[in-house]
Amino acid sequence: MLLHPHPKLQGMPRIAVHEVAPRDGLQMEPRFVPTEAKVAWLDTLSTLGYAKIEVTSFVSPKAIPALADAEEVMRRIHRAPEVVYTVLVPNARGAERAMAARADEFNLVMSASATHNLANLRMTQAQSFATLREVTTLAQQAGVAVNVSLSCAFGCPMEGDVPAAAVLHWVERFAELGVQAVTLCDTTGMADPGQVLALCGAALACFPGIAFTAHFHDTRGLGGANVFAALQAGITRFDASLGGIGGCPYAPGASGNVATEDVVHLLTCLGHDCGLTVEGLADASRLLRAMLGHDLPSAVGRAGPRWQRHEPPVDLVRTFR
Amino acid sequence: MLLHPHPKLQGMPRIAVHEVAPRDGLQMEPRFVPTEAKVAWLDTLSTLGYAKIEVTSFVSPKAIPALADAEEVMRRIHRAPEVVYTVLVPNARGAERAMAARADEFNLVMSASATHNLANLRMTQAQSFATLREVTTLAQQAGVAVNVSLSCAFGCPMEGDVPAAAVLHWVERFAELGVQAVTLCDTTGMADPGQVLALCGAALACFPGIAFTAHFHDTRGLGGANVFAALQAGITRFDASLGGIGGCPYAPGASGNVATEDVVHLLTCLGHDCGLTVEGLADASRLLRAMLGHDLPSAVGRAGPRWQRHEPPVDLVRTFR
Repeated sequence: MLLHPHPKLQGMPRIAVHEVAPRDGLQMEPRFVPTEAKVAWLDTLSTLGYAKIEVTSFVSPKAIPALADAEEVMRRIHRAPEVVYTVLVPNARGAERAMAARADEFNLVMSASATHNLANLRMTQAQSFATLREVTTLAQQAGVAVNVSLSCAFGCPMEGDVPAAAVLHWVERFAELGVQAVTLCDTTGMADPGQVLALCGAALACFPGIAFTAHFHDTRGLGGANVFAALQAGITRFDASLGGIGGCPYAPGASGNVATEDVVHLLTCLGHDCGLTVEGLADASRLLRAMLGHDLPSAVGRAGPRWQRHEPPVDLVRTFR
Repeated sequence: MLLHPHPKLQGMPRIAVHEVAPRDGLQMEPRFVPTEAKVAWLDTLSTLGYAKIEVTSFVSPKAIPALADAEEVMRRIHRAPEVVYTVLVPNARGAERAMAARADEFNLVMSASATHNLANLRMTQAQSFATLREVTTLAQQAGVAVNVSLSCAFGCPMEGDVPAAAVLHWVERFAELGVQAVTLCDTTGMADPGQVLALCGAALACFPGIAFTAHFHDTRGLGGANVFAALQAGITRFDASLGGIGGCPYAPGASGNVATEDVVHLLTCLGHDCGLTVEGLADASRLLRAMLGHDLPSAVGRAGPRWQRHEPPVDLVRTFR
């Protein structure tokens, strides 16, 4: 399976893949997936080799009805010991619920763009940061890990470019709170690989103590290019969404997260071990498709991996053999 | 428009974009586009900044009815002096027709995969190479430029991996005939960016006298990644197909060529000048869509460029301003 491991990439550390479809994907789906089906699907995901699974969100059930069953899902899933089960926590109330549900990690969100922060979270950045500090303190007291997902780190559809200095400034403020894990999110698919090389390189150089994850969308056909560039910059953790489901309500025309199948396919082509295989993901992907009742955008899901062989045309065999 | 030019990429030469939709794209379309419409569309393309346009194919009209009007199209288009008008030439008969039509360049095709060569061209590689030699001699006698497009340079859907040594061997044989331009074609979207770095890097290093073009498909979500890797390897010429139309009949599940809009968007993001703009392509893309009567796969055509601003939600403006 390990085709063309490029010499430059040999000896690279194992890559961690974080599955975000159960939260970031399902929250965008118009129809509620029954808890029973979600749990069965999550139990399949737990066996596949993920480093982390974002299970659900402890936002208000009124705000995101698709994830209103957060407590029940967390209670019913079978946890694999090697997987980190993370949940989105928007505020102190969410943190209490997430703690009661024994989440391994709180994923906190704010945006590097002031306008997107207002549009998506209905708070100013100062309000979001204050909330984030409050939740971080609660998590630290309870001994729960924290990850901060910084939205629009590669640009905002309303503001345009977000300066790299602003992104690094927010990371510094998170670090001052004791946060040790930050996800740089290309929330609406504005990243390009040159920018990814530069920003991820700078982030890794400036904050060697932070575990950075990269989170890309495939809005403009650059999801794969950005994963490749992030690998070149030294990023070793990636968010991905099975089938490529998900999106962002405040980004017109935005398509989904990079598909887990596509990311794992790319990693495999490059010779990286990530614990997952394209073949292993296929069943979970079929389950997801059946659950949602619509096709999934993943390119590899549609075309199959590059190592899948096809038969020559029948008349060719007849004529030339 | 020049966003985030990465320092590594600054000072790079101007990138040449070759439009292949009129030949490589249209030949796959089920319905015949009237000659009048083709010519009007080609005349629009000629004004946009392309280095080269693949106008049509001088294969047998019976084999590809979609391009049966090759002579008439070549006669009626208005040529821009700075654009190279290339045509596909399969054999000596095609070369005579292409010369009569005053093509600037003959684009000859053979495959790096023996099986794909048989399937696609119905000839062995030895037969194809003999034909190629014959046509190259005719072109040289007539003072017409030649480009060889080497299919399956990054893998074959039937054979699997094609060794880099085999690809370089074919380039050497073309060079021995006096060929000065070779396109490395990822005919069915099997290339990955690590392989592209390695193979394009080796080709450029081994054959400094050859003008290499890279030709990618977006079958597995890696079109953009492969263009980025090819740029890093030093490739400065790219085939692309407006709207992302095209494909390959002998590659099940294969999707189209990388879309010109997507490639130009990527080049612009990286700070490369290619003479084209995403905005300039939009009219030609709309014309193509109307001509074909179906949507086009281009991601940037759908989502718009990253620098396109969106308004914040109306209620946000009301609440916070």
